[in-house]
Amino acid sequence: MEDKNQNDGNEQWIEERYWDFFATRFRVKNVLFSGKSPFQKVEVVETEGHGKMLLNDGLVMISERDEFVYHEMIAHVPLFVHPDPRRVLVIGGGDGGTVREVLKHQSVQLCTLVEIDQMVVDVCRKFIPQTASCLDDPRVVVTIADGVEFVARTKDKFDIVIVDSTDPIGPAQPLFGPEFYGNVKQVLTEKGVVVSQAESAFYAGETQKSLLRVLAGLFERVNLYNYTNITYPGGLWSFSFASKGLRPVWHFDPERVQKSGIEFSYYSADIHRGAFAIPTFMRKHLAEFLSEA
Amino acid sequence: MEDKNQNDGNEQWIEERYWDFFATRFRVKNVLFSGKSPFQKVEVVETEGHGKMLLNDGLVMISERDEFVYHEMIAHVPLFVHPDPRRVLVIGGGDGGTVREVLKHQSVQLCTLVEIDQMVVDVCRKFIPQTASCLDDPRVVVTIADGVEFVARTKDKFDIVIVDSTDPIGPAQPLFGPEFYGNVKQVLTEKGVVVSQAESAFYAGETQKSLLRVLAGLFERVNLYNYTNITYPGGLWSFSFASKGLRPVWHFDPERVQKSGIEFSYYSADIHRGAFAIPTFMRKHLAEFLSEA
Repeated sequence: MEDKNQNDGNEQWIEERYWDFFATRFRVKNVLFSGKSPFQKVEVVETEGHGKMLLNDGLVMISERDEFVYHEMIAHVPLFVHPDPRRVLVIGGGDGGTVREVLKHQSVQLCTLVEIDQMVVDVCRKFIPQTASCLDDPRVVVTIADGVEFVARTKDKFDIVIVDSTDPIGPAQPLFGPEFYGNVKQVLTEKGVVVSQAESAFYAGETQKSLLRVLAGLFERVNLYNYTNITYPGGLWSFSFASKGLRPVWHFDPERVQKSGIEFSYYSADIHRGAFAIPTFMRKHLAEFLSEA
Repeated sequence: MEDKNQNDGNEQWIEERYWDFFATRFRVKNVLFSGKSPFQKVEVVETEGHGKMLLNDGLVMISERDEFVYHEMIAHVPLFVHPDPRRVLVIGGGDGGTVREVLKHQSVQLCTLVEIDQMVVDVCRKFIPQTASCLDDPRVVVTIADGVEFVARTKDKFDIVIVDSTDPIGPAQPLFGPEFYGNVKQVLTEKGVVVSQAESAFYAGETQKSLLRVLAGLFERVNLYNYTNITYPGGLWSFSFASKGLRPVWHFDPERVQKSGIEFSYYSADIHRGAFAIPTFMRKHLAEFLSEA
């Protein structure tokens, strides 16, 4: 962060540079933690307008103010499509936010979190209990390991796999490749669904295409759905959805959402369906890989 | 812009500060225009990653790269809900992007643009023909006038009014008030619809509420719909929709979209319906004013 700090008089700001032409800046009250793990730089800062934020290698991962959007959308979409999700694997997501949302589903008996970086889990437990306190739930198993190796070796099966990764640079790069997803398919049960963080259509259209190509080579159904991330550059970000047959809208029963009794801040049955309405420029770019939702 | 310029070595950046805790920065190749009108500071810059951008008082209005999203969503939603939109009034929007989308509807016989600031129209005609060249269309009447006074005095009637305004500070402030919307109602035909730029739910929730309260006091139906603006802070931005009876989804015929032959980059029938899926936190905040879509 030091190299990117901007000081305007007494104000302290952090800046996330995106490509070489766009940047977002957040005003900082306090730096709560700054360290280097074997994998990346890890920082927790308290901001003026977005609560506490976690940054990996200078990229904003979550803010307390808006993390509910990302975590509700990555978790509830697949868990409400699968008819009876019992065993869920989360790869990455050491902050715990995705696990927190998964656990809201009473059907879930086991949620395995595989995070490569112990430091991320440790600092989130210490500084961001809003997302990390759920990791103490008895249904959660936290495994510090490389997600790529985990899915290659495990004998366990999962109904849902959620790839809650950073951008495809540094430790997360293999999480966008065909070998990894081939192994994900192996660990999925028959009605299994895998959902992944799938970047920005405006700024990373080729990454989206490459990810969907990989998924379409392995899975029966491949879709993309959108959500808003106020702390990610450009705001319009996507998740991929791939399955051995389940369709994210066709097989979605909106009544289950209401019956679940879960309280949402962003998600709803309408939002679920609306998220699969793909802007025309995205649809044209990705048409060859997208299934009917 | 001078006061906000950031120079990193030889790089030139412009920065938009939002509240006092968030900022977005765009790398600039050239400043094409910088002037002061009686109403505001007006700038056109050529950026590295977003094409040319128009800024009023340091706030990004449009970028060539993503203006299609804003303009398609503000124009096509009301024009595809109204059964036969012939006369359209655009207030603000001197860049011409909204008018360009309105003119794609063959039913439209007249599009009146009422922009308060001659300088905005002039510099967009000169530097941003992508949006402004449509202003030479014979169906367009450009009137340089205060939109508030225009709707108070005109004897004309319109099927659609589009309030394509900046934030409710400076010259645009009265465009968020009850007197203005009372007059808008008067100039609307029986099946009339008014759509307005309605700010950000995350950062301006009270402005949204105040606008919807004004609209709900005057119109039969009031809704909000969302779109993504990559160059506006936080990405999730809204338009309001108010009418004397027409409902934005119920009265929407998706077949008309396809039959229109219009080529879209963002809009589609699915996007139209999906945009009215309001995130739960917004729905809770605005429930008392929102009609069924």
